[in-house]
Amino acid sequence: MEKLTLVKVGGKIVEEHQSLKQLLDDFSKIEGYKVLVHGGGRSATAIAAKLGIESQMVNGRRITDEETLKVVTMVYGGLVNKQIVAGLQSIGVNALGLTGADLNYMRSEKRPVAEVDYGFVGDVKEVNAGILADLILKGVVPVLAPLTHDKQGNMLNTNADTIAAEAAKALSKVFDVTLMYCFEKKGVLMNENDDESVISNLNPDVYKQYVEEGIITGGMIPKLDNSFDAINKGVKRVVITRADQIHTQNGTIISL
Amino acid sequence: MEKLTLVKVGGKIVEEHQSLKQLLDDFSKIEGYKVLVHGGGRSATAIAAKLGIESQMVNGRRITDEETLKVVTMVYGGLVNKQIVAGLQSIGVNALGLTGADLNYMRSEKRPVAEVDYGFVGDVKEVNAGILADLILKGVVPVLAPLTHDKQGNMLNTNADTIAAEAAKALSKVFDVTLMYCFEKKGVLMNENDDESVISNLNPDVYKQYVEEGIITGGMIPKLDNSFDAINKGVKRVVITRADQIHTQNGTIISL
Repeated sequence: MEKLTLVKVGGKIVEEHQSLKQLLDDFSKIEGYKVLVHGGGRSATAIAAKLGIESQMVNGRRITDEETLKVVTMVYGGLVNKQIVAGLQSIGVNALGLTGADLNYMRSEKRPVAEVDYGFVGDVKEVNAGILADLILKGVVPVLAPLTHDKQGNMLNTNADTIAAEAAKALSKVFDVTLMYCFEKKGVLMNENDDESVISNLNPDVYKQYVEEGIITGGMIPKLDNSFDAINKGVKRVVITRADQIHTQNGTIISL
Repeated sequence: MEKLTLVKVGGKIVEEHQSLKQLLDDFSKIEGYKVLVHGGGRSATAIAAKLGIESQMVNGRRITDEETLKVVTMVYGGLVNKQIVAGLQSIGVNALGLTGADLNYMRSEKRPVAEVDYGFVGDVKEVNAGILADLILKGVVPVLAPLTHDKQGNMLNTNADTIAAEAAKALSKVFDVTLMYCFEKKGVLMNENDDESVISNLNPDVYKQYVEEGIITGGMIPKLDNSFDAINKGVKRVVITRADQIHTQNGTIISL
């Protein structure tokens, strides 16, 4: 199987001109087939505020009413996505910006109202890996915005980490996939006060042990649970790292 | 050569929910390969106004400063484009939204400052018809936003009529292309006070005669000059019609 690296970067890096330029340079150095998934929450919040729309977050997720859906469709699908695509084209990477509606590559359903009504937020139901894989094998680099659709005419807001995981799992039918999550540290730390104490490898046994010993705690646990879920569903390895490390593939490598 | 119909619709129709739905239904009924090109100026003006950005128009063209470029990138590339793409997917049309940056399908250069400084407006320099044609032949329906890029990292605002004409000319290497421009009348009128007085056919000789006789005047002349330019550059026929007529191909048919 051919190797494919799927990199997910958060909003902050792609929303500032200088850090975006550095990121795209680093991303372009990754060898082999690749996909970029981006956020854009800060820009969405800023533009919503200018439009007089208050951003409401619950558990780190945006409550997406009708007006907010328009904002995220504009900001994620238009502003942020096209800045990345144009930036990649300028350095010779044949990027193609996509939402889930484009080519119907990712279909979702509006999340049922439970304790929280998240509004126009989509839970992924179907990924058409074939159409993405065809493009990738031709040298196209998909740039995935955190938006899906319900195939009934509605766009839906979908978390970028979820888009990355779902795309990575689906593409694992065709490629040897490395899923790379960028955050502000160089990896998962043994000691949260020491930025250099990166755990280089995690497998299910070591992970379980570190959780029991209290070494891995808090917000890192759902992130790692999701990573192991991806591994169990075909992704070869998940790398948790800092954006400036993506071309070196240094970081915490999660595998079976 | 296989037939391809390229339909350009203005902002008003695609910006209202009911008229958009009707348009997409009619568009889906066009047989054979097809492409949709859309505007979005009214939404851009409305959102710019809400963001406190004044829209300046000269000769019907938007002066595009840096902030306005962000607005049109959001509105054309995000909001309007994705509403159309999601709408088409809901009725079984495999749409793919594109700006010129995506797949580098349309490269432009920032318009030189002459009498007017239009700002970040792009004049088209290169269309990669091959990459579009490959997708179209696979059943994909490109939905083209009025945005190009300079391949140096910048998006540029480009008139939707121009996008339509340039795409149609380039695709004429591969397809028998009908370019359809929608406006508020059913075609070019013999008598501007009679909406039913549609001229059914125009060729260069008849056109010249009608202009000399004062039958065709004003804003219709540049529109028709552009149509004949497209015809001279490979497009088989240009149809000027009203959006609700696109599936019938009724209207004024312009050919050699």
